[in-house]
Amino acid sequence: MSDITALIDSVRTKQPLVHNITNQVVINFTANGLYALGAAPVMANAVEEAKEMAQNADALLLNIGTLTTAQVEAMVLAGKSANEKGIPVVLDPVGVGATSFRTEAAKKILENVKISVVRGNAGEISSLAGLESNMKGVDGTSDEDFKEIALAAVKQLQVPVIVTGKQDVITDGNQMFVLDNGHPLLTKVTGTGCLLSSVIAAFLSTSDSIVKAAAGAVSFYNIAAEIAAEHTSAPGSFQVAFLDALYQLKSNVVSETAKIEHLDITKKEE
Amino acid sequence: MSDITALIDSVRTKQPLVHNITNQVVINFTANGLYALGAAPVMANAVEEAKEMAQNADALLLNIGTLTTAQVEAMVLAGKSANEKGIPVVLDPVGVGATSFRTEAAKKILENVKISVVRGNAGEISSLAGLESNMKGVDGTSDEDFKEIALAAVKQLQVPVIVTGKQDVITDGNQMFVLDNGHPLLTKVTGTGCLLSSVIAAFLSTSDSIVKAAAGAVSFYNIAAEIAAEHTSAPGSFQVAFLDALYQLKSNVVSETAKIEHLDITKKEE
Amino acid sequence: MSDITALIDSVRTKQPLVHNITNQVVINFTANGLYALGAAPVMANAVEEAKEMAQNADALLLNIGTLTTAQVEAMVLAGKSANEKGIPVVLDPVGVGATSFRTEAAKKILENVKISVVRGNAGEISSLAGLESNMKGVDGTSDEDFKEIALAAVKQLQVPVIVTGKQDVITDGNQMFVLDNGHPLLTKVTGTGCLLSSVIAAFLSTSDSIVKAAAGAVSFYNIAAEIAAEHTSAPGSFQVAFLDALYQLKSNVVSETAKIEHLDITKKEE
Repeated sequence: MSDITALIDSVRTKQPLVHNITNQVVINFTANGLYALGAAPVMANAVEEAKEMAQNADALLLNIGTLTTAQVEAMVLAGKSANEKGIPVVLDPVGVGATSFRTEAAKKILENVKISVVRGNAGEISSLAGLESNMKGVDGTSDEDFKEIALAAVKQLQVPVIVTGKQDVITDGNQMFVLDNGHPLLTKVTGTGCLLSSVIAAFLSTSDSIVKAAAGAVSFYNIAAEIAAEHTSAPGSFQVAFLDALYQLKSNVVSETAKIEHLDITKKEE
Repeated sequence: MSDITALIDSVRTKQPLVHNITNQVVINFTANGLYALGAAPVMANAVEEAKEMAQNADALLLNIGTLTTAQVEAMVLAGKSANEKGIPVVLDPVGVGATSFRTEAAKKILENVKISVVRGNAGEISSLAGLESNMKGVDGTSDEDFKEIALAAVKQLQVPVIVTGKQDVITDGNQMFVLDNGHPLLTKVTGTGCLLSSVIAAFLSTSDSIVKAAAGAVSFYNIAAEIAAEHTSAPGSFQVAFLDALYQLKSNVVSETAKIEHLDITKKEE
Repeated sequence: MSDITALIDSVRTKQPLVHNITNQVVINFTANGLYALGAAPVMANAVEEAKEMAQNADALLLNIGTLTTAQVEAMVLAGKSANEKGIPVVLDPVGVGATSFRTEAAKKILENVKISVVRGNAGEISSLAGLESNMKGVDGTSDEDFKEIALAAVKQLQVPVIVTGKQDVITDGNQMFVLDNGHPLLTKVTGTGCLLSSVIAAFLSTSDSIVKAAAGAVSFYNIAAEIAAEHTSAPGSFQVAFLDALYQLKSNVVSETAKIEHLDITKKEE
């Protein structure tokens, strides 16, 4: 896509402030990743200030990776605040389905906050949407199944969905992008999915098209991983090289390297 | 030991899910370390889901490094849940003795949860077992004292014990392993002791012998540190090289490099 | 300054234990940074043990980056405990002014704890001292304005102040140091300001002069950044190289490289 260059340049020019209410495991990596690509992070996860902080931000990221009851409350407060201000809200339902607490928390957030897009792996998205499948099974499904999961989840949740995996599927029910960049070492570093969700939030803040901005963000991210993997084949140094690549990756390189298939779902279904 | 190769291979094949309730300082490093060696981490430290998450796991790690009253409660819930399921539980009593809150918390955990093994430095193990010694003094004691501390702690706590330091002593009161690998740079990176405890939990999940699995885990870990230290002499790059080494270290190299002395305590005492 | 060499050597010899009550984002980086330079970190942020842990420490760092009501309480308890023991207390008012909760928390700490020195950027210091300026505006002000902000804040808060930025201004109202080392990559790694505050706490514990110790700490820190930037121009590898530099940087190199202007404010005002 030719507008990816402009999209990335616009993120780096605007330096959007992304308010992250995220889990303790990835909070440092998320902040460093956002700084590296040219955005600005703020982490404020207390009930006492979540609402007010969201008013300062250009985008909001909600990640349920290490949740408490107070955190869920803070997420709802921040989410409603973001909706009032009209900034994008990304939901990352980490491990939803693993415990009933996470499942209930995700539901509560979806009921109370207008989410711009949900990002998860196939198991998380299936679980969130209540699709019939077990997580083990979903992980082994084919790319065709990923598209069906994404579409079924959009229908069920009434929210655009990003299913990430070996390929990445992005759809709002009308358009669908299937992306084919990335590197397996991403799965050996904790928080790479979580950081991606924050990066998507940053990109959404500079674009009117959710699915196009998401496709640009995911492509940018995955190509940075490909470049990092040219320098190393082990996860410690990969994480370092990946942060470097997020910082150094030129926008036109992303346009030239992105493997994006664009499907018009509406037409197809006619 | 010849079975170390098989032990490491079995961890990497099984990819055990280690549920960590650990401190905020090391939570990211722990997750990355477990991924690097081939295990899978999950961090769920809320009272609301600790019990349920432990049921999904192959091993449980309890670390009291940054504790709150709610965390202690979550640890007891997860620990009892792990006991029910029959998975190993490792206790890392970080800083026990430094405050009465930590001491009481460790006691409460020991009273309510069947612990598979406790890992700490000589000061922590002495303090946990109520042995008469001050922490400063213990740190300066000889290797002989380390063995006595370990044995006295096993007698007192009725739990296998790992005392890590320049040498590492592992004993259940019947057998004792004294290990002599490692590198001083490990003491310059925060969380290397904590991650080791999680690695031990991963290894315990694939073996019936607690002390043998622990000896394999500690040897594997310390030899990874030796390899990392061949690439650098400063702590920032050492941490990176260490994660790389956990990922790349071949199991047979550990068998060939491990310096393990095996003592039959029972015989000795007859 | 010729006594910087002695100051750094004394920190490394004494290995002061710095008790940090800090935010979740930077807690790991702070611990690793303190270890790297030769100090010892302890992180204990629970109300249940904050008071007791401060009694073990040589210095206390209070950082309001990810705050809850319980954290504020813990900070006040630890601060009072530190005051009783007579150890230095550094306040880092991260993001003060961004939400009323942070502003109130900072005020409460200042009212209840005798702070040795406050460190922040120009916007944070202005906001904390209630100076008339908005944060965006302050970031663009000239070096002269930084000096005025620092002096006005000292007058208002009755506490020595460090304003960090492109140049760093340190003053207690009588003496002023203006420092001119550092590197822009510091702004691309999360927590570099926060770690600096902890490093200042470590240095304060070995010196009677707050402003001199602070000038030594900031110079040491910024020169480590300059050395790290000789090895890389991207933030991931910069963070690694920076930790290495904190570990390897020789004290006499700091004395020789430090760009410190010493102003006698009292004389000037006569």
